[in-house]
Amino acid sequence: MLQSRAFIQTKKEAPKDEQSVNAKLLLRGGYIEKLASGVYTFLPLGFLVLKRIERVIREEMDAVGGVELLMPALQPKELWEETGRWASMDVLYKIKDAQGREFALGATHEEVITGIVRNRTVSYKDLPFYLYQMQTKFRDELRAKSGILRGREFIMKDLYSFHATEEDRKAYYEKVKEAYLKIFKRCGVSVLVAEASGGSFSKEISHEFQVRTPGGEDIIIVCSRCDWAKNSEIAGKRAGEQCPSCGNALGEERSIEVGNIFTLGTKFSSVMKAFFTDKDGTEKPMIMGCYGMGLSRLMGAAAEVNYDERGIVWPREIAPYDLHLIPMQSKDAAMQKRIAQASEQLYQKLQERYTVLYDDRDASAGAKFADADLIGAPVRIVISEKTLAAESAEVKPRNGATAKIVKIKDIEKELCPVIQL
Amino acid sequence: MLQSRAFIQTKKEAPKDEQSVNAKLLLRGGYIEKLASGVYTFLPLGFLVLKRIERVIREEMDAVGGVELLMPALQPKELWEETGRWASMDVLYKIKDAQGREFALGATHEEVITGIVRNRTVSYKDLPFYLYQMQTKFRDELRAKSGILRGREFIMKDLYSFHATEEDRKAYYEKVKEAYLKIFKRCGVSVLVAEASGGSFSKEISHEFQVRTPGGEDIIIVCSRCDWAKNSEIAGKRAGEQCPSCGNALGEERSIEVGNIFTLGTKFSSVMKAFFTDKDGTEKPMIMGCYGMGLSRLMGAAAEVNYDERGIVWPREIAPYDLHLIPMQSKDAAMQKRIAQASEQLYQKLQERYTVLYDDRDASAGAKFADADLIGAPVRIVISEKTLAAESAEVKPRNGATAKIVKIKDIEKELCPVIQL
Repeated sequence: MLQSRAFIQTKKEAPKDEQSVNAKLLLRGGYIEKLASGVYTFLPLGFLVLKRIERVIREEMDAVGGVELLMPALQPKELWEETGRWASMDVLYKIKDAQGREFALGATHEEVITGIVRNRTVSYKDLPFYLYQMQTKFRDELRAKSGILRGREFIMKDLYSFHATEEDRKAYYEKVKEAYLKIFKRCGVSVLVAEASGGSFSKEISHEFQVRTPGGEDIIIVCSRCDWAKNSEIAGKRAGEQCPSCGNALGEERSIEVGNIFTLGTKFSSVMKAFFTDKDGTEKPMIMGCYGMGLSRLMGAAAEVNYDERGIVWPREIAPYDLHLIPMQSKDAAMQKRIAQASEQLYQKLQERYTVLYDDRDASAGAKFADADLIGAPVRIVISEKTLAAESAEVKPRNGATAKIVKIKDIEKELCPVIQL
Repeated sequence: MLQSRAFIQTKKEAPKDEQSVNAKLLLRGGYIEKLASGVYTFLPLGFLVLKRIERVIREEMDAVGGVELLMPALQPKELWEETGRWASMDVLYKIKDAQGREFALGATHEEVITGIVRNRTVSYKDLPFYLYQMQTKFRDELRAKSGILRGREFIMKDLYSFHATEEDRKAYYEKVKEAYLKIFKRCGVSVLVAEASGGSFSKEISHEFQVRTPGGEDIIIVCSRCDWAKNSEIAGKRAGEQCPSCGNALGEERSIEVGNIFTLGTKFSSVMKAFFTDKDGTEKPMIMGCYGMGLSRLMGAAAEVNYDERGIVWPREIAPYDLHLIPMQSKDAAMQKRIAQASEQLYQKLQERYTVLYDDRDASAGAKFADADLIGAPVRIVISEKTLAAESAEVKPRNGATAKIVKIKDIEKELCPVIQL
């Protein structure tokens, strides 16, 4: 992509009303733009990151048998009244149409998915099945905060599983847990799995995937020696007390919840009459699980833990572009032309294997380098009069590793280990 | 994809409240499910079609320089008041949050995109640029009708262009017109370009892309000899009168509008103060165009014009699967095993190049064939005791072309011309 056509405009300063690291970095880098409190546009760069996260999630959800669909945001009041959540869910946006009918804006989709499933004839032979979507959700949060970590409009992946037996549900729950760990690893965020409340869903505990960072709004109590970790809301222990598992002293940390998996059991299926016919011919409510993950929040969390003083350092798999190619200016017209030609040739060649942002702008080296650091593609490649004299380019990983001067013809060989393809 | 895991459930009869061809076919085929009037879930099959349409549109938008982003659905009242459309747009869903702030649910995005663009420093050198998104829109239509042709919640691609000169805008308008024709061709719908009103946007005419079909809700006056075509609302002529262009007798036809392109000029940019600095150093409002296309409507229109008495006949590029592979049952257990083995081998092989729905269900030939016709993948491949005796399979295009018995090892060669890869 030519940078001059990419609708990228970076900012030297973040707006004063944004406090969080992710919001500052993403706003300055030209990734997002605020429309209202908790409501952001994903500008072209931000959109590319979202799409890459979407792809990682889709691959891992498909790998555990997930089948993708897309449910509506407009959800009739009557459906939400069946589970009592029209009255009890406090973040529900409610809307009345011109004809007086009332709708909730989808804050979550248990009611809709259970409604779809109960419309079918389901035998034990059809179970289990796993349905997921990636879609915009709406929640009227009293306080939207932390940039895209807690928005009023945000993008979420929600997976729902349906089983004939509790054993089967439990086994799948563990499988999804593993899939989640793969997703976060691929997206460059290190998580720990903390026990948390089952919420209004269940008496059973749920599991949260927590990214430790000072910018998080959750507090977790963790053991640094074993894997004991709980959300402070249910921990029953404080920092300094002994770990119930290994006796080590517990610590307290702030963290961002990037995913949460729940045991629903028959809470929704029994109330909404989503039954299947079991082996013995009797009708039973399906046993359900639900598994959430915020795409926009994951993008924010990835920014929150991968940056330096100059900007974001995107993890390879979710960077908006693999490479940022920068031709330098020269005062000598003939040399300028040679640099441009060599750069464009390389640009064409690299695009066969990589996504490349090509800085074709008429700007100073300083401005181009500052933008490259702020945008944060994993590798910067610079062609200048000096490098060209040795038929080379400078290849510099964004993660701080040393820059190398590499023969242009060898660049692709050089890139493989650097960006870990 | 294994059909037993694909969450596909076809219906013998369409619900009685659905009148339109597309709704009947898509509901029976298991593509969509109604949640409320004008609000549908895209079930896994429908979701696949949407994704394929999205891909075609993305390719063609990128080819005309479009840069993709994603704008919010929650849009502050104040923004809509700037253009006066908070009061004047009658299909706007309005919502009030817990703190009393009012929002519109995005029915269209001129206000938001113009708001984004005015926040930037734009010089004539930065122009033109072209921004698009594919996103859910909400319109409180008095009467939702015709299945997914006119929904209250639907998916739309909207492109906005920004120019320094009217000549440049005009040239781009023609370029988008050509891109639209490519998209509709690839999606298997034949369109004609009809002149229509500029709506509230402009005094200039707009252009609609109309698919002629009895199920359409628009009426167009067309000449069958030349390319004169106008929406009846502005035609100034009736069927039977002379074509103003060639003198031929005009006809009247029903049609579905699948796309509409508009001249916005400076209507939004002057009111909202989206200025650029021109060559002479003066500030001028940017000159705008907007270009809409309904993804869900295009899916409905494609179904509406590509079907027979047995179900949908999907155009190749937007079919949910390229191939439907069906192993037949046999009463002989050893033969049954041979059929399954040969089918699975072929399934693995075909997946290297095609998307394949594999009917692994324990069902009768009749049930499997009926489902295959209803679902409408472009090619059906059947392996039975009889075909296997000749190391062959039956290859049958869904479009009515004659079935062929083809050696299994030659199937890929055979498929190339059949499904026009």
